[in-house]
Formats: sequence, structure tokens, C-alpha cells
Amino acid sequence: MIEKAAMVNQALDSAIPNKAFPQSNRLHDAMHYSLMAGGKRVRPTLCLAACKIAGGLEAWALPAALATEMIHTMSLIHDDLPCMDNDDLRRGKLTCHKAFDEPTAVLAGDALLALAFETASNLSSYPTEVSPDRIARAVGELARCIGTEGLAEGQVVDLECTCVSEQVPLDKLEYIHLHKTAALLEAATVTGAIIGGGSDEQIDQLRGYARSIGLLFQVVDDILDLTKSSEELGKTAGKDLASDKTTYPKLIGLDKSREFVEELLGQAKEQLNGFDPESAAPLVNLANYIAYRQK
Amino acid sequence: MIEKAAMVNQALDSAIPNKAFPQSNRLHDAMHYSLMAGGKRVRPTLCLAACKIAGGLEAWALPAALATEMIHTMSLIHDDLPCMDNDDLRRGKLTCHKAFDEPTAVLAGDALLALAFETASNLSSYPTEVSPDRIARAVGELARCIGTEGLAEGQVVDLECTCVSEQVPLDKLEYIHLHKTAALLEAATVTGAIIGGGSDEQIDQLRGYARSIGLLFQVVDDILDLTKSSEELGKTAGKDLASDKTTYPKLIGLDKSREFVEELLGQAKEQLNGFDPESAAPLVNLANYIAYRQK
Repeated sequence: MIEKAAMVNQALDSAIPNKAFPQSNRLHDAMHYSLMAGGKRVRPTLCLAACKIAGGLEAWALPAALATEMIHTMSLIHDDLPCMDNDDLRRGKLTCHKAFDEPTAVLAGDALLALAFETASNLSSYPTEVSPDRIARAVGELARCIGTEGLAEGQVVDLECTCVSEQVPLDKLEYIHLHKTAALLEAATVTGAIIGGGSDEQIDQLRGYARSIGLLFQVVDDILDLTKSSEELGKTAGKDLASDKTTYPKLIGLDKSREFVEELLGQAKEQLNGFDPESAAPLVNLANYIAYRQK
Repeated sequence: MIEKAAMVNQALDSAIPNKAFPQSNRLHDAMHYSLMAGGKRVRPTLCLAACKIAGGLEAWALPAALATEMIHTMSLIHDDLPCMDNDDLRRGKLTCHKAFDEPTAVLAGDALLALAFETASNLSSYPTEVSPDRIARAVGELARCIGTEGLAEGQVVDLECTCVSEQVPLDKLEYIHLHKTAALLEAATVTGAIIGGGSDEQIDQLRGYARSIGLLFQVVDDILDLTKSSEELGKTAGKDLASDKTTYPKLIGLDKSREFVEELLGQAKEQLNGFDPESAAPLVNLANYIAYRQK
């Protein structure tokens, strides 16, 4: 995974046009700053692995994989804004609106979103094995996970919940996480599978896998926030308790949350039955990593 | 044009998923509010007309045409935000962040941008005459006009200029307008031409046409702001003078600005030479409309 992340980092760095702009490098610099501010590159790695398990070569899906990280970065920049989560730090560095300013952060997010679609739709960056109709389908899949079916919807409902003091019911909590977290992981996986030439049945299975690890990702996040120190996490621990945020441990308890992790991990792996075990291995490893990570 | 706008309005209304959302209709409502808040639908009309002049049927380009209006609406929502132009009114109605709130406005813009790409990349909404590779190329063209090559770049440089009290030099003013205004008009035109099956040469000519009318659009805007009353414009007149904004009349004078309008209009029409006059007529009319409109 570390090896994949290094490769993705290099490709991301080249994907942002690196030229001297005639009037101002501000927009470019803000995009570059946030995109290269670190991160585990889970979404691109998922996309590449899904392409392989569906019958393609990993490299085929690289443009779409880069797009998933650009979309993810856009959502972090916008969610960090003062009018939303108002965060000054992200991965130990200043957030985009702190390092630059608010308007630049809004516009850098917009520009990264557009760059994602420019990158993913660029026919000439795919090999001939990947037909234009697969590329158009992949673009549609990426687009769908951002708006009312994904990131933005999840954030709007999440913000509505923080405005009321009541505890969030379990179905609403799941709705938020399926939109805020799982939808993009799902799109990354399905996009890779489409580009790799997966059958409809394979794509459905991989969609199920991704939804399970999407929810898993969030439940583990909730557990870590409660059980680890800030030193162990490398970020402020106990934030959820301090802000009285509804989490899985709060709603169903820590033990049941840990059982839920095992259940979701089992569900994810079950969806990989029927695939060649060797090409399924990276996706199994990713699911284990998400479940058992310590930060 | 009025007829076309009515048709586009109906199609836009259907393009936003109109369903009851299980947790909140807020995001959907904000998207719908801003997208349906009026407007002349110049970009979709351009896109449809360019598809026809390039050899297609107008209807072929409808998904891409709708996408151009969604992108335009996103840029208006984000540019109106308190951290940018801080506008309370747009076309006589409350701006999105006033009618809803700031986070919802940021996210509604993001969601409209994503919906644009979902709509434009949807293979099943095009007839079989439009091949998937044309669709992928069109998506790339739309993406390119938003970030460092278009809207966001123009807005960043424009905001930088409003922070300094010096007069903006002519080349910078043109840079801003080519990015903030012309780039999306260009993308609308070129996207239509790609979908219509235009040759590379035709696409180049139409690109030139669109860049001329893009700049034309802005010069006329500057002149109207200076010469018309608020009643005639239906919006606050004299805003540029009041805010000491650099405009064409301010830099080169009113007479020279009017000459520049004629020059740009001539350049635009010249690019239409060689096309069948009957199918070129809508683009000639659009250019005349942009040059001679009274508000």
C-alpha cells in the first residue's frame, strides 16, 4: 500500500498543470498544497485494485484513481471551511483557507473537482483496451457520488444534526456515513471495476464490498477517537466526546461497535468470493487494514 | 431564443432528481432554487446552436447544454458567497446563501458541478449518432473551463485585483474576462460542435467565435452599467463606478469601448464564414443579441 501511495503521489503531482501562470499562481498553488498535503491514498489504491480484480491491469485505472483523490481533497477543503467544520489543521498542516484564504479555498476545491473530471475523461491517458464508453460510464459513477447521492448530501445532513442537540438515531447516522464516506469509496471501487472490464455481476459484488468497508471505515474512526490518545492518532483524540457528536460507540456501546466492525469486515470479504484469490488479495488486505488500523 | 430558453428550463427542471429525500430535502431544494432562478440560458442555447452548425441535430447536445447551465449556476452561487463578492441578490431574488445558508450554498454549488458531469456523461441520454468518444471529449472540454483555465482562475485574479487600489492594466482585465466569462461560453460552443460531429477546423473556428463573443459580452456589460439606469437594467446600475472597478470604458473610454464592441462582433461573425448560412443564423443572432442588448 505504501508503494502504491508513492506511485499515486508522483502521478498526482504531475496531474496538476505545473506552469508559471501569467497573472497569479495562487489558485494553482492552493490546489497543489491541499492535494499533496499527505494522506493514505486509500481511494486511488482501491480503484487500482478493483480494476485488477475485474480483469484489467492496475495501470489502466490510474486517471480515474487520481480523480478519486482530487474529489476527496475537494471535499476536505470545503468541509474544513469556517462556515462548515471550521478546522484550522488537517493532517498536521494548516487547512487550505488558513494557508491561503477563504475564497481561494472555495475556488481551489471547485478547480480540483473540475480537474478530477478532466483527468478521468481524458481518452488519451487510457490504453486502447479501455473503450470510450467505459470511460464515460466511469465519469458518471464518479459524478454521482458527490451530490445528492453522496458527499454533499452527507455533509448537509451531518450539519443539520450538529444544529440540534438531540441524539442522532442510528438510521440517520448510517445515512450520513453511507453518503459522506462510503459513496466515494464505492465510486472509486466501481470506477476501477468498470475500467477493468468487470461484468455487471462483478461490479455489483464490488459495490457491496465497498459499501461495507465504507461504513467500516467510519465505525473504526469512531472507536479510535474514543480509545486512542492524541499522540497515538497524530491528531486530536476525544473530539467526538468533547463536541457531543453522535458516534457508533455512543449509540450502541464500544463492544457492540467492535462486533459491528467484525460483521462489516465479514460482509466485505464475502463479496469477494468467486474472484480469483490472488487478484482479490489487495482488496482483502485493504479491508483488513481499514478494520485493524491503529490510527 | 425565448423558445429555446423555455425548452431548456423544462429540461433543467427534470434533470435535478425530484424525489423526497429520506433525511432532508435541503441540498436538493437549494440546487433547484438556484438553477431555476431565471436567466437567459445563453450557454445552453449556444451549445445547441453549435451542435447544429457542426452537422448534428440540436437535440443531440441537450445533456451537455444542460451541463453548461449547471456549471454557470455553480459559479454564480460560489462567487456570491460572503467571502467573495458578498451579494444578497441575484436576478432580483435572494442569493443561495441568503435563501438557505452558507454551507448549503457551498455544497449546492459542488453538487450542481457534479450533476453537470453526471448529466453530460450519461451515454443513454444521447442518440446512437453521438459516439462515446465524442461524449468523453465533450466532458473534458467542460471540465477544462472551470479550474486553472477558466472560471476559478478568473475569479481568483479578479479578487486579487479588488484587494489592490491600483487600476488594472488592460491585459489583466482581458485575462480576467477571458477566464471568468469567455471560457465557459467557449466550452459551451465547442462541446456542442464536438457532439455535432464538427471537424477539427470547424471546432477551431467556433472556438474563435466563442472567445470573441465572450469578451464582447463583458465589454457590453461594462457599457450598460455606465449608461443605463437601474430601472432599465432591472438591477443596480453604476455599480462599477461606485466600487471603483476597472472596466473597459474606464480604461479606454466609452467611444473606444463601443468601437471594440463592433470589432469583436465583426471578428465573431468572420469565424462563421464558410458555414451554411442557414445553420449559422442562430449563432449570428446570438452575437448580435449580445452586442446590442439593452440590459
